[in-house]
Amino acid sequence: MIEARLKADTTHSIHAVCVVHNETSTGVTSDIAAVRRAIDAAKHPALLLVDTISGLACADYQHDAWGVDVTVSGSQKGLMLPPGISFNAVSPKALEASKRATLPKAFWAWDEMIEMNKTGYYPYTPNTNLLYGLHEALNIILGKDGKAGLAATFARHQRWAAGVRSAVNAWGLPIQCGDASVYSPVLTGVILPEGIDADAVRKIIYERFDCSLGTGLGKVKGRMFRMGHLGDTNELTLIAMVAAVEMGLKLSGVKLAESGVHAAMDYFSA
Amino acid sequence: MIEARLKADTTHSIHAVCVVHNETSTGVTSDIAAVRRAIDAAKHPALLLVDTISGLACADYQHDAWGVDVTVSGSQKGLMLPPGISFNAVSPKALEASKRATLPKAFWAWDEMIEMNKTGYYPYTPNTNLLYGLHEALNIILGKDGKAGLAATFARHQRWAAGVRSAVNAWGLPIQCGDASVYSPVLTGVILPEGIDADAVRKIIYERFDCSLGTGLGKVKGRMFRMGHLGDTNELTLIAMVAAVEMGLKLSGVKLAESGVHAAMDYFSA
Amino acid sequence: MIEARLKADTTHSIHAVCVVHNETSTGVTSDIAAVRRAIDAAKHPALLLVDTISGLACADYQHDAWGVDVTVSGSQKGLMLPPGISFNAVSPKALEASKRATLPKAFWAWDEMIEMNKTGYYPYTPNTNLLYGLHEALNIILGKDGKAGLAATFARHQRWAAGVRSAVNAWGLPIQCGDASVYSPVLTGVILPEGIDADAVRKIIYERFDCSLGTGLGKVKGRMFRMGHLGDTNELTLIAMVAAVEMGLKLSGVKLAESGVHAAMDYFSA
Amino acid sequence: MIEARLKADTTHSIHAVCVVHNETSTGVTSDIAAVRRAIDAAKHPALLLVDTISGLACADYQHDAWGVDVTVSGSQKGLMLPPGISFNAVSPKALEASKRATLPKAFWAWDEMIEMNKTGYYPYTPNTNLLYGLHEALNIILGKDGKAGLAATFARHQRWAAGVRSAVNAWGLPIQCGDASVYSPVLTGVILPEGIDADAVRKIIYERFDCSLGTGLGKVKGRMFRMGHLGDTNELTLIAMVAAVEMGLKLSGVKLAESGVHAAMDYFSA
Repeated sequence: MIEARLKADTTHSIHAVCVVHNETSTGVTSDIAAVRRAIDAAKHPALLLVDTISGLACADYQHDAWGVDVTVSGSQKGLMLPPGISFNAVSPKALEASKRATLPKAFWAWDEMIEMNKTGYYPYTPNTNLLYGLHEALNIILGKDGKAGLAATFARHQRWAAGVRSAVNAWGLPIQCGDASVYSPVLTGVILPEGIDADAVRKIIYERFDCSLGTGLGKVKGRMFRMGHLGDTNELTLIAMVAAVEMGLKLSGVKLAESGVHAAMDYFSA
Repeated sequence: MIEARLKADTTHSIHAVCVVHNETSTGVTSDIAAVRRAIDAAKHPALLLVDTISGLACADYQHDAWGVDVTVSGSQKGLMLPPGISFNAVSPKALEASKRATLPKAFWAWDEMIEMNKTGYYPYTPNTNLLYGLHEALNIILGKDGKAGLAATFARHQRWAAGVRSAVNAWGLPIQCGDASVYSPVLTGVILPEGIDADAVRKIIYERFDCSLGTGLGKVKGRMFRMGHLGDTNELTLIAMVAAVEMGLKLSGVKLAESGVHAAMDYFSA
Repeated sequence: MIEARLKADTTHSIHAVCVVHNETSTGVTSDIAAVRRAIDAAKHPALLLVDTISGLACADYQHDAWGVDVTVSGSQKGLMLPPGISFNAVSPKALEASKRATLPKAFWAWDEMIEMNKTGYYPYTPNTNLLYGLHEALNIILGKDGKAGLAATFARHQRWAAGVRSAVNAWGLPIQCGDASVYSPVLTGVILPEGIDADAVRKIIYERFDCSLGTGLGKVKGRMFRMGHLGDTNELTLIAMVAAVEMGLKLSGVKLAESGVHAAMDYFSA
Repeated sequence: MIEARLKADTTHSIHAVCVVHNETSTGVTSDIAAVRRAIDAAKHPALLLVDTISGLACADYQHDAWGVDVTVSGSQKGLMLPPGISFNAVSPKALEASKRATLPKAFWAWDEMIEMNKTGYYPYTPNTNLLYGLHEALNIILGKDGKAGLAATFARHQRWAAGVRSAVNAWGLPIQCGDASVYSPVLTGVILPEGIDADAVRKIIYERFDCSLGTGLGKVKGRMFRMGHLGDTNELTLIAMVAAVEMGLKLSGVKLAESGVHAAMDYFSA
């Protein structure tokens, strides 16, 4: 679809293709490299701009190898920090485009930042506290030898996600993401049966078991909730979340096919 | 038994009756008021000395009402702090005895402490950091109006303990404490079947699931482990522990009657 | 000047008057109420927009009483927190203007924030950690009864500033702010003698005494440095800063009339 | 004196020579190696027991090289941690003596600790939090290559002590330690003129300047106070303390010969 749209744009009125790497509201990942190939196949000059705010340090991501022009991320997801820093990775082509761009810019006004960064400083007040935290987080994520640690970080998230999905499958509830090849390693959206108010279930789980789930957004509001499995977590914490959801579903009168907790335990102890 | 022993001690060679309020190594509580009644019934002058290190702020305890002479406790259990402070509550009778005592004393040399405490200071370097922490912990434990908070703290521990015991019962494994009327609200000792090395099971649970259980001590070493349910915890955390134990038991080849996780979930969501 | 410029703007092409309450780069405060009076005297509809990033909780500031339309501030100065939250106070008139404004907006797109705030939530990820910190900071700033604490906070900053200025005066160095009636209670800019590189002095003070001063910005770069006296500080800390500067000036060959440290000590112990 | 006393003890009724390495109440250090030589010269079997609670990681100390039998220290001084851990270093000879000793022992009952330490564990609840802190503190104290860092740590304390003493000398007040060869690098005791209540001066310094000094103990109570210069401090912090004391002395009507603050500044900026 992207290739077709770009080919049809013979006047190059489209300036950029914007893609979310890991879609937080639904639990779906995008194939960024494939988007790049579509742009290239269309021989279109549009920039490729990617939001990997919730994907970075959870799912594999390669700014350079995948030909991304601008990557945006933040501290508060896979980097396991409070909110307070965001990051831009910028290609030479994007820098060029930035110089010619006439729209007002704030976060994407890179010149001053690049100039100051040469000396190790920032043009404005940096969030020094989070930079210290980032240093520790990267030590955890990259591990001792860098590459192995990063691969282990991605594998860990895939394993966590599979364990949680095994619970949802056992319950007999649909996973919102319809295509198993693009399941998110970060979160899983769970569709509730007709007639069940997902936000009422979330409220029970929160008030009874002190466990906070993400709400359905936009047109699935009230129809689903989101179970996170990212960052500073582990298998027992995820089993606890699955147990909270299972108890909350039962208290809400939802009929479950089988125990999701047992499914997750079987998965994690296999 | 205590009454009989004291009555037999006609020369008053026994100076003190020492009791543990909550026995950490086995998960058994003692009826302190009954011990006091036994001492009084024997008309014996022995002091009543009680260790409530792991019981304080978990199980009901009343130094004055129960006629205890010296109570010893510490920061690192129900008070939810790191180790680093211990506490003595001392009756007038114990203070008198202390003045006449000829054994070398260190922690129980109270005179200097009492003298300095009048001015709000300590004779030696106090652990100021933990005193700040203690202030926060007491706000949590006592709640806004003091009494209600403390009762809620005790009820919370009883509920946690019952939930964990429901899991052990579902597994079909014996609880070490043989008398239900003195079950500990702080921890539960679980006896493993003959032929199973409890410490090997603990090792699997620790290494596979990052969950650390207490070992069996003394003559039950290798025969049992201890599951804690105290302090800064909640129902989901306890379900996670129960799940870790259930997975570890299965991985160790222990046959379980039913799912303890389901039993705990049923208990906590009833 | 503002009144004259606005009167001359008969077509109302000027949409807003933007003023900095406490000018961090120079150590000068602005009389915000006077700016409001000038706008009113000119009978001009321009909005009054005020940056009190470094002034809030240091110098008296009254968004409503002074008729400000938009106030902008942040967490990292007088509120004594890490950077990571900024604040907007918005008048009804500014809200109206916002609805008609056609420029792209990000931080100043208030509708969604106002809508969500009704329920106590945020439209985007809030910096929860800093909200907890803000709660503690406000307890410190407002004191037990609110008003008295705030007045004491302002008085404290005025006293700190006067103590530091007494040191600069004793050295015989000019204060950058030429008008004593608008001295900043937050920082003091110090002009160095001709031929002295202020940044070289700053480097000596930083490397020898671990004390970091603000650099001169723009056209006074290399001619001055800035001494801060705000937030979580006290008289001894300020004397230490004054001592570091005095030692650094001497090591740089700057002739000083008298001891600034003694002047500050005399001021603070009077 | 020690040698003479030990030679006179022909029945070996003296079991141990107990020495304080750095005397916190007076600011005097002891020559531990010389004490060892005296014991050896007397050919006496007494153990050499040393308290280096406030000396460790401030002043050079060599348990093995100086032939100490038991060294006692703690976390809360040169190791820059809260109170909560203490340490024993024990010679083979002391271990042997411990086995034969019949006095009740608690902290010095080493057998169980040594047995458990082989496996990396403790016989009782360890202060895990402080062990993490100790790890960081040792990284600071030992530096990257261990030896150089330790030498720098000792040199730093000597420099701090000399700077503070230069202030006391400038004031014209006597330093309590009468022998310059045994000045403490950790603290300096300052004797006040006749008729001045040292504790009243301390109170003024504390209440007016938020700076807490050590009180005189025993027979010098009210005659002197103690200025610390150890651990996590630096030259500016010490100048601030000197300034607080100088202001407090003046407010108390003590006549000072010269400015101690200037003397310390001259010393630290030389």
